[in-house]
Amino acid sequence: MTTSPVTVRAVDAPGHPTPSPELEQLYRGFERELLVPLWTEIGDLMPTSPRPAAAAHVWRWQRLLELARESGKLVPVGRGGERRAIALANPGLGGAPYATPTLWAAIQYLNPREDAPVHRHTQHAFRFVVEGEGVWTVVDGDPVAMRRGDFLLTPGWCFHGHHNQSDTPMAWLDGLDIPFVHTTGSAFFELGPDSVSDHSTPARSRAERLWAHPGLRPVSQPGPAVSSPIAAYRWEHTDAALADQLELEADGFPGVLEPGHAAVRFSNPTTGGDVLPTMRAEMHRLRAGTRTATRREVGSAVWQVFDGAGAVRLGEREWPVERGDLVAVPSWVPLTLTARTELDLFRFSDAPIFERLHADRVQIEGEQA
Amino acid sequence: MTTSPVTVRAVDAPGHPTPSPELEQLYRGFERELLVPLWTEIGDLMPTSPRPAAAAHVWRWQRLLELARESGKLVPVGRGGERRAIALANPGLGGAPYATPTLWAAIQYLNPREDAPVHRHTQHAFRFVVEGEGVWTVVDGDPVAMRRGDFLLTPGWCFHGHHNQSDTPMAWLDGLDIPFVHTTGSAFFELGPDSVSDHSTPARSRAERLWAHPGLRPVSQPGPAVSSPIAAYRWEHTDAALADQLELEADGFPGVLEPGHAAVRFSNPTTGGDVLPTMRAEMHRLRAGTRTATRREVGSAVWQVFDGAGAVRLGEREWPVERGDLVAVPSWVPLTLTARTELDLFRFSDAPIFERLHADRVQIEGEQA
Amino acid sequence: MTTSPVTVRAVDAPGHPTPSPELEQLYRGFERELLVPLWTEIGDLMPTSPRPAAAAHVWRWQRLLELARESGKLVPVGRGGERRAIALANPGLGGAPYATPTLWAAIQYLNPREDAPVHRHTQHAFRFVVEGEGVWTVVDGDPVAMRRGDFLLTPGWCFHGHHNQSDTPMAWLDGLDIPFVHTTGSAFFELGPDSVSDHSTPARSRAERLWAHPGLRPVSQPGPAVSSPIAAYRWEHTDAALADQLELEADGFPGVLEPGHAAVRFSNPTTGGDVLPTMRAEMHRLRAGTRTATRREVGSAVWQVFDGAGAVRLGEREWPVERGDLVAVPSWVPLTLTARTELDLFRFSDAPIFERLHADRVQIEGEQA
Amino acid sequence: MTTSPVTVRAVDAPGHPTPSPELEQLYRGFERELLVPLWTEIGDLMPTSPRPAAAAHVWRWQRLLELARESGKLVPVGRGGERRAIALANPGLGGAPYATPTLWAAIQYLNPREDAPVHRHTQHAFRFVVEGEGVWTVVDGDPVAMRRGDFLLTPGWCFHGHHNQSDTPMAWLDGLDIPFVHTTGSAFFELGPDSVSDHSTPARSRAERLWAHPGLRPVSQPGPAVSSPIAAYRWEHTDAALADQLELEADGFPGVLEPGHAAVRFSNPTTGGDVLPTMRAEMHRLRAGTRTATRREVGSAVWQVFDGAGAVRLGEREWPVERGDLVAVPSWVPLTLTARTELDLFRFSDAPIFERLHADRVQIEGEQA
Repeated sequence: MTTSPVTVRAVDAPGHPTPSPELEQLYRGFERELLVPLWTEIGDLMPTSPRPAAAAHVWRWQRLLELARESGKLVPVGRGGERRAIALANPGLGGAPYATPTLWAAIQYLNPREDAPVHRHTQHAFRFVVEGEGVWTVVDGDPVAMRRGDFLLTPGWCFHGHHNQSDTPMAWLDGLDIPFVHTTGSAFFELGPDSVSDHSTPARSRAERLWAHPGLRPVSQPGPAVSSPIAAYRWEHTDAALADQLELEADGFPGVLEPGHAAVRFSNPTTGGDVLPTMRAEMHRLRAGTRTATRREVGSAVWQVFDGAGAVRLGEREWPVERGDLVAVPSWVPLTLTARTELDLFRFSDAPIFERLHADRVQIEGEQA
Repeated sequence: MTTSPVTVRAVDAPGHPTPSPELEQLYRGFERELLVPLWTEIGDLMPTSPRPAAAAHVWRWQRLLELARESGKLVPVGRGGERRAIALANPGLGGAPYATPTLWAAIQYLNPREDAPVHRHTQHAFRFVVEGEGVWTVVDGDPVAMRRGDFLLTPGWCFHGHHNQSDTPMAWLDGLDIPFVHTTGSAFFELGPDSVSDHSTPARSRAERLWAHPGLRPVSQPGPAVSSPIAAYRWEHTDAALADQLELEADGFPGVLEPGHAAVRFSNPTTGGDVLPTMRAEMHRLRAGTRTATRREVGSAVWQVFDGAGAVRLGEREWPVERGDLVAVPSWVPLTLTARTELDLFRFSDAPIFERLHADRVQIEGEQA
Repeated sequence: MTTSPVTVRAVDAPGHPTPSPELEQLYRGFERELLVPLWTEIGDLMPTSPRPAAAAHVWRWQRLLELARESGKLVPVGRGGERRAIALANPGLGGAPYATPTLWAAIQYLNPREDAPVHRHTQHAFRFVVEGEGVWTVVDGDPVAMRRGDFLLTPGWCFHGHHNQSDTPMAWLDGLDIPFVHTTGSAFFELGPDSVSDHSTPARSRAERLWAHPGLRPVSQPGPAVSSPIAAYRWEHTDAALADQLELEADGFPGVLEPGHAAVRFSNPTTGGDVLPTMRAEMHRLRAGTRTATRREVGSAVWQVFDGAGAVRLGEREWPVERGDLVAVPSWVPLTLTARTELDLFRFSDAPIFERLHADRVQIEGEQA
Repeated sequence: MTTSPVTVRAVDAPGHPTPSPELEQLYRGFERELLVPLWTEIGDLMPTSPRPAAAAHVWRWQRLLELARESGKLVPVGRGGERRAIALANPGLGGAPYATPTLWAAIQYLNPREDAPVHRHTQHAFRFVVEGEGVWTVVDGDPVAMRRGDFLLTPGWCFHGHHNQSDTPMAWLDGLDIPFVHTTGSAFFELGPDSVSDHSTPARSRAERLWAHPGLRPVSQPGPAVSSPIAAYRWEHTDAALADQLELEADGFPGVLEPGHAAVRFSNPTTGGDVLPTMRAEMHRLRAGTRTATRREVGSAVWQVFDGAGAVRLGEREWPVERGDLVAVPSWVPLTLTARTELDLFRFSDAPIFERLHADRVQIEGEQA
C-alpha cells in the first residue's frame, strides 16, 4: 500500500530527463528564478497514499509531570511567557512544538494560588483533566471549574486566564490548533489584564447553567454558534454516557462503536457538529480484553489514556500505555487499541478540517474502503 | 394595522370594473371555465398583514378531561379508530379538527391495562404530559415512559403504539402536524401489529440512554437526523434548565428571554434545530407577577398551562388560565402573558415551516420591526 | 393504492364505539366544547397515501385568452384591483382561485400602453411567457423585458409593476404561492406608486447583466440569496440547454432525464437550489413520439405546454394538449406525458416546501420506491 | 501592527525564567523527552497578527516561458515525471515548490502532438490560459479545449491527461492545493493509462453542454456537488461579465467591487460557492488609472496578469507587472493594485479553507475592521 510507483526515478524512466550539461544548466536556471520542477518532486509531493513527516510516538505522563513540576519551581507564570505549558514535539517535525502537523498538545502546570494572565487568540483551545482539581479557567469572564475527567473549551478569540485556588499544584492537558494556524498564517493575539479579575469558585459555570441540559437550549439564543457554548463537559455525564452504551450492548441493543468499545463525541449543541471548527474531541471506553478493529483515517490525532492500562499499535509498532500517556497518531497510520483492564481514552483530532473540505477518508479493517 | 387599503371595492375604484351586463356575462364565462378573477379577491387573498381564518380560543382542561373520561367508558381503543383522541376544533376553521391551520392538538386517554394499536404515518407527533403517569409509548420498538412534565417524540414514519401498565387511566396532550399534511397532500399511513409487542416498563428509553447526555453524542451515529433522536425530554432536566435561567437573572447575568421570563426550546442534538421538521416545542416559566412583552409572529401556536395560574391576552381579549388549559394563537395575533402565580407553560408552533421557507417574521412590543 | 384499510368504520370494528344515547350525548358534548374525535375522522385525515381534495384538470389556453381579451375591454387595471389576472380554480377546491392547494396560476393581460400599479407582497411570484412580447416588468426599479419563452422572477417583498410599451396587448402566465401563504397565514402586502416610474425598455435587465453569466458571480455580492437574483431566464439559453441535452443523448452520453426527455431546472446561482423558497420551475422537452415513465410525487404541480402537441395522462384519464394549455397535477397523482410532435413544457411545483421539510417522496414506474 | 508585545523576552520579564544551571538542565530534559516549552516560542507561534514565513514575490512570465521552452527540449513528458510543470518556489519557504504555504502554481508546457499521461489525485487542480491554444485536457473522459482566457477545472480524484493536437507548443498556469494537502497529510494518487484514449477535439466539453447555461441545471443531476461540474469557464463569458459590470457602473448602478474595479468569481452552480473546496478563483478588471483600496486578508493568494500593465504594491514594496507575471501574496500582507492601462488579472486563493473554518478576516483601507 505505501510504495508509490511514481517514486521510481530511474534515469531512463519515460517521464524523466537524461542527465546532461544542458539539463544541469536548466536546473540552475530554475534555482535562479525560484522555480522547482514537478518531475523531480512528484514522488514525495503526490504519494499513492499519505506519507506524513510526523511519526507515531508515545510520551509518558509521569515523565511529563516530573518536568512540569520542575518547571513549577524554575519558571514563573506571567505576562510575556503567558503560560507554563510544555508541548509535545513530534520527532518527525524537526523540533517544532507540534504533536502533529496540525495539533498542539501540552501539559500545563499551575502552582497553588497562581494566576495565568488573560489573553485571547484565534487559535482554538481546550483543556482535558487527567487528574487533580482546584483550578478555574475564566473564559470571557465566566469561571469554569476544572476537575478530573472534565473537558473544557476555550474557543478562538475568547479572553481567558486561569487561577489556582487550591493548596496543591494542578496539571492538565492543553489542546490547540497552533500548528495549523501557524502554517496557514491565521494567527491573531491580544493581551487582556495581567491577572484574572474574578477569583470566585463556582461549581458550575454560567455557560453550563445555560447550555448543559440535554437537548434543551435557551430560547434567548436561538442561532448556530461557530464553537460549542458548553464551557465544560463534566465527567459525570461522560462517564454515564459511556456506561449506558456498554449496558445497551449487554442488553443486545445498538449504540457502541464496535463490540466492547463505547465512544462519545463532545458536540456543539447548536449545530450537532464538532465542538470547535478545527478540532474533534471524543471519549472512548474499552471493556477489559477488547481489541479494536485496525483503523486509519486521513488527518492526525492525539490520544491520552484517562484510566486503565492497555496497548496502542501504530503501524508495525506497539506501545504499552497507562494513565496519562499521550500518543500521536499521524495521518493514515493504522491504529489498534487493546485493553488489558477496562480502558478509558480521551482523543482529539483535526477531522473537522478534512470533513469541511470533503477530504476525509476512513479505512477500517474488514470493511470495504 | 389590519385594515387593508386594497379591500376597498367601490364601483368607481380605478382597479375595479363598472357593473354591466357584459361584465356579468364575463363573470359567467369565468365560472364555466373554472376561473376566478384576482381583482375581486385580492383584498382577502393579499391583506396588508395576515388575517387568519382561525380564531384565538381557549379550551378548558377540566372540560376536556371530563369528556375524555366519558369517552373512556363508551369508546374502545382498537384497530380502525386507532386512538381515543379528541381534537381541538378551532371555531374559525369550519368544524375541522384543527387547532390552527397547521396544528393538531388533542387529549388522548388510555384506560388501565389498555393498548393503543401500532401504526405509523408521515405526520410528526409528540406527547406532552400535564399530569399522571403509567403509560409507555413504544416508538420503533423502544418503550418510553410517560410522566408529568415529560415531552415525548414520535417523529414521522416511526411505528408506535401505547400501553397503560398502571391501574389508573392516563390522559395527555398529543400534538401533530395533521392539518398541514392534510392540506398539502403528503399523508402516508401504515398499520403495524394490533397490539404492542413489548410491554416492559423501563424507567429510561434506549433512545435516552444513547442520546440524553448534555453535549455528548454516540460516535456510532455521527450524521444529522431529520428529527431529534431523543425520545423523551424529562421534566427534571427541563425544570432545572428553567430554574437555572431565573437564577442567572437573579445573579445579574443574561439568559432569560425577557425580565422574569425563562424559556427553553426542545432541540435536535444532531442539528441544534427544532425537534421535528414542522414543529417547534418550548417550555416557558414566568415569575409570579411577570407580564410579558406583547409579541406576534407569523405562524400559529398552541400553549398549554403546565402549572400555576395567570392570564392570556390575544388581541383585544383576555382569558384567565390555569393548569391544563389550552390556547390557540393564530398567525400574527398579538399575545401577552401575565403570571398571577409562578407560571409554567408548554408551547408548540409551526415556526420551523416558516423559518425553512424564509417567511418568518416576529414583532415585539417596543422593538423595531 | 387509494383504499385505506382504516377507512372501514363498521359498527363492530374494534376501534369504533357502539351507537347509543350516551354516545350521542358525548358527541353533543364534543360539539359544545369545539372538539372532534379522531376515531371518526382518521380515515380521511390519515389515508394510506395522499388523497388530495384537488382534482386533475386541464384548462385550454385559447379559452383563457378569449376571456382575458374580453376582460381587457371591460376591466381596468389600476389601484385596488391591482392586476388584470384571472386564476385557475381547481374543481376540487370549492371555488377558491387555487390551481392546487399551494399554487396559484393565472393568465395576466395588459393592453397597449397600460401600466399595472406598483406593490409588493410576501407571496413569491414568477411570469412565464407562452407568446408575445412588449411588456416590461419593473422589479425593485429594474425594468425586465418579457418575451416568448422567458421565465421571469418577482421574489417575495420586491416592489413591482408592469408596463406595456407596445401597440399590442400581451398575455402571460403568473405563478404564485398565494394559496399556501393564505392557508398558513403569512401574507403581507404594501402599496407602491400608482404607476411605474421607469418606462425605459432595455433589452436586458440590470440583474441579468450582473448575474446571467454561466458560473460567474459578482465578487461584490458574495453571499447566498433567499431567491434567485436572475430576474430573467431567457429562452435562448433554455432552448440551447434542452437542445444540448438531446444532442448529448444522441451522442451516447448521459444528461437527459430519461430517454427522449430533456429537462432543465431554473436555479438560484447563489445556492444551486430552487429559484424561490416555495416554488420549483423547470422546462421539459420531449422528442416526438416519446412517452415518459409514469411518475408521481408528493406535492402538486402545474404544467403549461410551451410548444408542440401531445397528451397528458393523470391517473385514469388522458387529455390531448397543445400550446398554452394548463394542467393541474395534484399530489401523488400518476402522470404520464406523450409527445405527438416535439413537445416543450413549462412546469412549476411546490416541491421546495416538501424537500425543506423532508416530506418529499417520488415514485417512478419501474423503479423501487 | 506587526510588533507583538509578547515577543519581548527580557530576562526579567514576568513570564520568563531567570537563566540558571537548573533551568539549563530542565531544558535538556525537555529535549530528551521531545518537548518544547511554550514560553520560549509564544512570540513566534502566537503573533498579534499573521507573520507568514512566505514572502511577497513576483515571477516574470517571460522568464518562466523561456525556461519552459528549454524544458520542452530537454525533459520528456511521460509516466513517472507525469507532467512538464515548473513550480514557483516562494523564497520564504526554504526551497519547497510552494507559491504560498497552501498553494501550488506552475507553468506547464506541452510540445506539439505530445500527451501527458493519465492519473488522478486528491489534490484539486485548475488550469488558467494566459496565451495560446491547441491542448485538450481530458477530465474523466471528457475532452476540454484550452484557449486564452479560459479557466478549466480538474477537481480532486478525477482522472485526467492532456494532449496537444496542434503544431505549436502550449504553456499555461496550473494551480493546485499541493502544499496544503502535503502538510496536512491527505494525498492519494492513482495512475491511469499512459496516454489519453480520446484525442478528439470538440469545441465544447460535454460538461459545458450540460452545465454552462446561466442559472439552468439538468434535472437529471439535482444534488449539490463538492466541486463545480463546469469543466471550462470560457473567456467570452468572463469578458462579457466584466464588461457588464463596468457598464453598470458607467450607468450609475451597483455591481463593481469598488470604483473602476470589476470582479467576478468562478462559482459552483450546484452550491453558489467556490469552484473547489480548497481554492477560490476570480477574474478582475481595472479601468486604466484605477488604484484599488489597500486590502489584506487571512490566507494567501496568487495573481496572474492576464492583460495590460500596472503595478502591484505588497506591504512596503511595489512591482511593475505586465502580461503573464505572477504574484504571491502571503497572508495578511496589504495589497494595492494600480492599472496603467486597462488591466485584467486572474486571482486564486485559499479563502475557502478559512471561510469553512470560520477563520476568515478581511481588512480594507478606510473601512472598519
